Amino acid sequence: MKGDDDVNTAMKDEEADGSGEKLLGFNSTEEQPSGPGGQDSMWRNEKYESVPLDVKGIDEDNSKGTSDSLYPGTALRKTQQLDERPKDSKLWPYFQDGQRRIDYVLTYHVQKPPSTRKQKSHSCCLRRKRTSSPSRADPELAAQEQRLDYHEDDQRLRREEFEENLCEMGLEMEKDEGTKIPGVGFLKIHAPWEVLCREAEFMKLKMPTIKKYEVSPGSGIAEKVNMFMQKVTAPLQPKVVDCQVENEKHLSYPFSREKQHLFDLSDRNSFFDSKTRSSIVYEILKRTKCTRAKYIMGISSLLGSGVYTEAYPLHDGDIDCVHAEPNDRKILYEEWASYSIFYKYQPIGLIRKYFGEKVGLYFAWLGVYTQMLIPAAVVGVIVFLYGCATVDDNIPSMEICDERNNITMCPMCDRACSYWKLVTACGTARASHLFDNAATVFFAIFMALWATMFMEHWKRRQMRLNYIWDMTGFEDAESHPRAEYEFRVMKKSLKKEQSPKSGNVKLTCTDRMPAYMTIIVMMIFLIFVTLAIVFGVVLYRVSIMTALHMSSTPTFRSNIRATVKTTGAVINLIIIIIMDEVYGAIARWLTIMEVPKTDKSFEERLIFKTFILKFANAFTPIVYLAFFRGRLIGRPGKYIYVMGSYRMEECAHAGCLMELCIQLCITMLGKQLIQNNLFEIGIPKLKKLLRQRKIDKKHQEELNKTLHRHEKDHFLGPFVGLNPEYMEMIIQFGMVTLFVASFPLAPLFALLNNVIEIRLDAKKFVTELRRPIAVRAKDIGIWYTLLRGLSKVAVIVNAFVISFTSDFIPRLVYQYMYSPDGTLHGFVNHTLSYFNVSQFQPGTEPLEPLHLGYRVEVCRYKDYRDPPWSDTPYEFSREFWAILAARFAFVIVFQNVVMLMSDFVDWLIPDIPKDISVQIHKERNLIVELFMKEEQGKKYRNTMSDPSPQPLRSRPSSQA
Amino acid sequence: MKGDDDVNTAMKDEEADGSGEKLLGFNSTEEQPSGPGGQDSMWRNEKYESVPLDVKGIDEDNSKGTSDSLYPGTALRKTQQLDERPKDSKLWPYFQDGQRRIDYVLTYHVQKPPSTRKQKSHSCCLRRKRTSSPSRADPELAAQEQRLDYHEDDQRLRREEFEENLCEMGLEMEKDEGTKIPGVGFLKIHAPWEVLCREAEFMKLKMPTIKKYEVSPGSGIAEKVNMFMQKVTAPLQPKVVDCQVENEKHLSYPFSREKQHLFDLSDRNSFFDSKTRSSIVYEILKRTKCTRAKYIMGISSLLGSGVYTEAYPLHDGDIDCVHAEPNDRKILYEEWASYSIFYKYQPIGLIRKYFGEKVGLYFAWLGVYTQMLIPAAVVGVIVFLYGCATVDDNIPSMEICDERNNITMCPMCDRACSYWKLVTACGTARASHLFDNAATVFFAIFMALWATMFMEHWKRRQMRLNYIWDMTGFEDAESHPRAEYEFRVMKKSLKKEQSPKSGNVKLTCTDRMPAYMTIIVMMIFLIFVTLAIVFGVVLYRVSIMTALHMSSTPTFRSNIRATVKTTGAVINLIIIIIMDEVYGAIARWLTIMEVPKTDKSFEERLIFKTFILKFANAFTPIVYLAFFRGRLIGRPGKYIYVMGSYRMEECAHAGCLMELCIQLCITMLGKQLIQNNLFEIGIPKLKKLLRQRKIDKKHQEELNKTLHRHEKDHFLGPFVGLNPEYMEMIIQFGMVTLFVASFPLAPLFALLNNVIEIRLDAKKFVTELRRPIAVRAKDIGIWYTLLRGLSKVAVIVNAFVISFTSDFIPRLVYQYMYSPDGTLHGFVNHTLSYFNVSQFQPGTEPLEPLHLGYRVEVCRYKDYRDPPWSDTPYEFSREFWAILAARFAFVIVFQNVVMLMSDFVDWLIPDIPKDISVQIHKERNLIVELFMKEEQGKKYRNTMSDPSPQPLRSRPSSQA
Repeated sequence: MKGDDDVNTAMKDEEADGSGEKLLGFNSTEEQPSGPGGQDSMWRNEKYESVPLDVKGIDEDNSKGTSDSLYPGTALRKTQQLDERPKDSKLWPYFQDGQRRIDYVLTYHVQKPPSTRKQKSHSCCLRRKRTSSPSRADPELAAQEQRLDYHEDDQRLRREEFEENLCEMGLEMEKDEGTKIPGVGFLKIHAPWEVLCREAEFMKLKMPTIKKYEVSPGSGIAEKVNMFMQKVTAPLQPKVVDCQVENEKHLSYPFSREKQHLFDLSDRNSFFDSKTRSSIVYEILKRTKCTRAKYIMGISSLLGSGVYTEAYPLHDGDIDCVHAEPNDRKILYEEWASYSIFYKYQPIGLIRKYFGEKVGLYFAWLGVYTQMLIPAAVVGVIVFLYGCATVDDNIPSMEICDERNNITMCPMCDRACSYWKLVTACGTARASHLFDNAATVFFAIFMALWATMFMEHWKRRQMRLNYIWDMTGFEDAESHPRAEYEFRVMKKSLKKEQSPKSGNVKLTCTDRMPAYMTIIVMMIFLIFVTLAIVFGVVLYRVSIMTALHMSSTPTFRSNIRATVKTTGAVINLIIIIIMDEVYGAIARWLTIMEVPKTDKSFEERLIFKTFILKFANAFTPIVYLAFFRGRLIGRPGKYIYVMGSYRMEECAHAGCLMELCIQLCITMLGKQLIQNNLFEIGIPKLKKLLRQRKIDKKHQEELNKTLHRHEKDHFLGPFVGLNPEYMEMIIQFGMVTLFVASFPLAPLFALLNNVIEIRLDAKKFVTELRRPIAVRAKDIGIWYTLLRGLSKVAVIVNAFVISFTSDFIPRLVYQYMYSPDGTLHGFVNHTLSYFNVSQFQPGTEPLEPLHLGYRVEVCRYKDYRDPPWSDTPYEFSREFWAILAARFAFVIVFQNVVMLMSDFVDWLIPDIPKDISVQIHKERNLIVELFMKEEQGKKYRNTMSDPSPQPLRSRPSSQA
Repeated sequence: MKGDDDVNTAMKDEEADGSGEKLLGFNSTEEQPSGPGGQDSMWRNEKYESVPLDVKGIDEDNSKGTSDSLYPGTALRKTQQLDERPKDSKLWPYFQDGQRRIDYVLTYHVQKPPSTRKQKSHSCCLRRKRTSSPSRADPELAAQEQRLDYHEDDQRLRREEFEENLCEMGLEMEKDEGTKIPGVGFLKIHAPWEVLCREAEFMKLKMPTIKKYEVSPGSGIAEKVNMFMQKVTAPLQPKVVDCQVENEKHLSYPFSREKQHLFDLSDRNSFFDSKTRSSIVYEILKRTKCTRAKYIMGISSLLGSGVYTEAYPLHDGDIDCVHAEPNDRKILYEEWASYSIFYKYQPIGLIRKYFGEKVGLYFAWLGVYTQMLIPAAVVGVIVFLYGCATVDDNIPSMEICDERNNITMCPMCDRACSYWKLVTACGTARASHLFDNAATVFFAIFMALWATMFMEHWKRRQMRLNYIWDMTGFEDAESHPRAEYEFRVMKKSLKKEQSPKSGNVKLTCTDRMPAYMTIIVMMIFLIFVTLAIVFGVVLYRVSIMTALHMSSTPTFRSNIRATVKTTGAVINLIIIIIMDEVYGAIARWLTIMEVPKTDKSFEERLIFKTFILKFANAFTPIVYLAFFRGRLIGRPGKYIYVMGSYRMEECAHAGCLMELCIQLCITMLGKQLIQNNLFEIGIPKLKKLLRQRKIDKKHQEELNKTLHRHEKDHFLGPFVGLNPEYMEMIIQFGMVTLFVASFPLAPLFALLNNVIEIRLDAKKFVTELRRPIAVRAKDIGIWYTLLRGLSKVAVIVNAFVISFTSDFIPRLVYQYMYSPDGTLHGFVNHTLSYFNVSQFQPGTEPLEPLHLGYRVEVCRYKDYRDPPWSDTPYEFSREFWAILAARFAFVIVFQNVVMLMSDFVDWLIPDIPKDISVQIHKERNLIVELFMKEEQGKKYRNTMSDPSPQPLRSRPSSQA
């Protein structure tokens, strides 16, 4: 019954040629196009066209078995016959005839697999008008079933209708219920050549034509540099055979059946590669309607309503089988997804060939980012080393460490603490210099320009990839509405009873208002939660600090600061990691509530929310440390208190930069280590184990060997999109650029992380996950916008870090306005104001005023205020205002100069590499030329036959 | 000889149908597609196909005349016959057969028109292998000619070869030498249907298909608002008949001859409109090679080397003829290019239809800009009125005007001036308040957002136009190299003698280095010239001021300030206008020197240079006034002197804002009035007169009546591109946004100017200039970037104007930090420092110290400095630094808040209007559907005949 179509196909094949060569092992004719020569493929094609009659016979048998699957109770065989085939056949994704490739797999629940049936498979096209299906055979059984699983029945009917519609579209299908995995039915889909051609035309897929042209290697010097670079980087290139001859490229043109003669169709099997085939099928699946449920359109709604459980294309083959034919997946596994080749370039072309453009772009982007981090890391290390080298020449820290400058500081806390000598802050001051020196300013500017360069470099790389991948001119079509959206729309139209004009119903703002309000309230609430957490950590630190100060053990006290800082940072880190997951879940929930129309807008909204929440989560503690800590403390005698009696935190003498640095370091390292190890390696492994545990353990070993490709892939994790990967990288990019002025080693840490990250992701994609549907993409979309936004924010944040968090501006102002000799000598003294200890608020004076061994009359504190003996005691001094003005001026100058420089760099570097634009132009001309020639050929042929252009030829005679 | 092709054409026509209806007046069948119905056009088409034999006869006659033109000495006739035709035929752009439309005209020099020949015309295709041409007929005459005009000969040969190549491409031509305009030969070009189709396919022109679809008017409220708006604006709409039914749009698809059935080809004449036809011909002209001069490609090189003198498409018809058939040009003249309908919308669709997308976009942009100026002007006026209304409540100016505050000010100039009372500055202070009040800050923010809104609005409008004009998906192809570039490349390759590989030669950086160096040096020099001019004007003002102060006439002295300010501003204006023209010429010269490769890059480089120079020219005086004037004056007793003894200018008491305002006002008004009147109206008229004066004056009247279309158009000015128009508007946009904080009336002035400008430009385009070649464009290109850049710069400039030029920040700081009662009382006193008159530098004390009638011991000056009796006399005071810090802080806050708001607005408003994106999506789906149906239709037909899908039908029987 359903086998007719197989006969059909076979008959079609037969038409071409009946020679029937090669009866066995025809699987080998189905190799993926990993480098067949022209002639060879010609030969193969012939073979493919001529499917031997035996094969047809198998199909016929098969089809009988298939028809049984729909009418339970009939006997079934076929499995043995299959097992006689070479074992490898299971690794390859083919229909049971071994001929037709499985381009896509849908799975669904089979609730009660009757134990009698071991394996049911049928290949279809299903027939139309199967109205008899609901009330079929054996009425008793049916009645029983009806009660138990009406729902199940309904879903099966929908499936049947959907499959009929797919059939209508020309797809060929094969069902496989009750396999080794109980409760799961597989629908294997194959797209025949006709369908592929038709869809490729609709999708305007650019395919390589026969016409080749030389890619000019660039003139003179450029060419030599290129050659040299190629030689130098040769050992860094992955060992992937590139079919194309260098310096030559096939002209590509949107596929069109009317222009078939342009394309090299000698090998129809490899003309569309596996990722293209599956994306074509997916396109059809998305488009095909299921009229049983009026509002439902496409596979996504069917997946949403549980009619099908999973939908995935198949991997090319196995990785670990030693004897397996070489396939792209295996090559990727060996030449990409391995830590041992971390120093090599990625085989981007192959990644794109296997996973599609979107994934290809992600890895290309990650590669570019990692590569660009190398110079940043080098410069960062140099800047850090410069700090180390100059620490002994640094006058302010020398002055602090100089015991002769006998400066008595005011107590750090009320009552419990006493006066202290500045010289005890010597260590911190010296450490601070490592991150707070003149080179830091340079590094901040460098990193701002670096970010711009990175963006530009990426744009160019993207353009180049677009050209190589024939994506120029590709326009992203708006996708179909999501199932949830359609469902909501249907509910709305039902409520309004607008059934005649149901096509026009859509969700308006009013419908979405509750969701929007929830989102806004929720987002604000979550931001407040983040702030509250930070404040909580601050309180923890303050209270612990006070408590520790209270205790009288001296060893305790000496380690107080370090302990509190470190524990505070670790607590922050743990909270960040936990909240990251929580926020991710909340963002998803909020987006689902919003019911966006298309997948694209769903993705964008989700990314936007996740980004805001995760970003706030990661950066609030850091922003607090950089800009608020130590600002709101008041002054001796008039401190600011929170929660009753806690004084706000002060910074160590040499600025908060040091603490900011520790926090950044711990956050970056900890986040990356924990998230990488736990979330990216640990959890997927765990999930896989759980998924496989559902099956009997004893059979597992045996099963693994006999599983078919689609069954194996079923055990892999579903592909959940690139967003988590991107998000992680964006947060890291933020760490690298936003506060780079305070932590020049950030790029180095990021670099180390990314080198591992690339291979980790690669492993995940190749071995752990199902193959993603190849999505065409021209760019990385919203992520680029976010990167751009971040690099803009980075400029202003760094300006503020340098001018407000670091002591750069006060030093500069002192040196040029107040210093008697133009050096920094006396700077420390200049930054300290005087306080008359008799003016402490009652009850806040130190309990042990004689702690230092002498009676203190005036203590010093870090601020610019008038001394007690001036007309305006404790008012902000003229120096304060002058330095404040200088700080602000620096911010303005820094921000605008860096922005101008960035814009200039942006403008200077063309978005499209010169050679690529030349190439594109050339290609365009070649196409016109090609058609022009064709045109003239046609004309000439016409001239031979048509009478109209005759006078053209008769002209010579009329001359004279 | 050349006539053969006419025969050819005629014969082709004859093939279709020989009925030969309508012998006379066939011109009327050639109407432009201004609304013919379907049936009607069908009928016409038939008629067109059937050219009567008589017409062919005319052509044959004609061709004989033509062949003569190449072989001088033979007799000639034909003119009379032409004059017998209805007079209107001359207004229409047709070949002499009255059938074939002239799509393009090339003109060339005809050096010695033999008096015997009155009019020579021939229609061709020219023949190949005209090797005999150089050595032809009459050897004596030839020898003579050879000596005299070898150059002329060479050019004619090139023309002939070029024309042959054009013929090869399928174009049809007609020559017209020695017409009423002596010395000018015309080559009229017609593109037949075949060529049009072929080229339209290559150019991927999107054409409307037969398939219509309903444009959804939007849901519920949106629809009602739309309807209401349409009703309200109905009287503002131009009276242009729109052929399309509202709410319906033809689906468009790139034209393809294989899919001809999709298009409505019933009226082949109107399928491609005149602008498309001419742009198709232009495309061919650009591409066609002239192998005689190897390096030369396309018409632009031929124009460059003088082989042809002009190249232009023809206008549709006359404007002033009352009896003329209605044509697009006439409609445009009546419904667009008229001052009396200044309040109406522009008929953008028609403009685009007539002039092409690029011009259409310019006017659309200008319209949007003008429209957006309305709210800005209204708010600006309100802000100004607010200033007027609150002038009496303004405490600072009240204090200044209060005679009781007996404040003695330090002298304004050395020796000649004396002490003065602050109350005399009352008038200026009150006037200043008009432009310097709290509303100004609001207005600056408003205008920053306005600029963003404008950009966004334009982007959306552009997108909408792209959709309506079927430009979505259009990609701008890189154009051919310019003639100058090719010439330089040829020279280079000759030098290198790289003739075998001449294709690879290109201009490298090394070749261009001298030009680049010149450009950089020249640009820097010119910027310095601009600065020097400004400085010169400053010196003029200072010296005049001093001189006038010297004179003792009291009436003179009272008017001193006003006089000097006004004359200074006028001088500035005159210099700006003169230098504008100079800089324009220099920029062009520099760009030519640079030899850019393509027209596009030429244009971009030219625009860039012109923009920098003109911008610097227009804004340097204003920047000086806003930010430098009054800053660098020193203090009493220690003034800063320039050029020996001139003290730098001071501002009037209430800030420089007032003077900035006057300068802006004069520059804007004067520039627009003079440039509009003189350069845009006066000079073109003058040029036209000059051009026509070349012809005998007495015949002129008579000639005007009998001139053909292509001859009339010859007298019109050549189209020089839209860049001058855009540039003018960009500078104006700069005026409106950059210093808007100081001059809230700027948008009003701009609005008034633009309302006139639109109609002025319209008149120019419709009546004064030749028709421009229709250029497809998706956006306004580099101008958008410039606008964006300007609106970004505007934010920071306005931040600085508010914080530094106006007294806004000092007032604010005083009010919140120093004021005893929280009001501005005492503010004036607070801004004035004290100076001990005994500390004047010797020789600078006033000559008449007792001028005020009493002895002055301490005078006041506007600055924040410590008084003479403090510890640090005349040092900047604490208030100075506090206010400076506040100013800087304001700049940072303003800049970042406004930028953030702009970005937010940018992000909030989607670039593509919702309805358009829905429409585009719909259109895409419809196309897929259309093809899908076609597909199934094909399949069905195949099923009827092919054996392969047979099993599909046989399936029903196999069921059961």
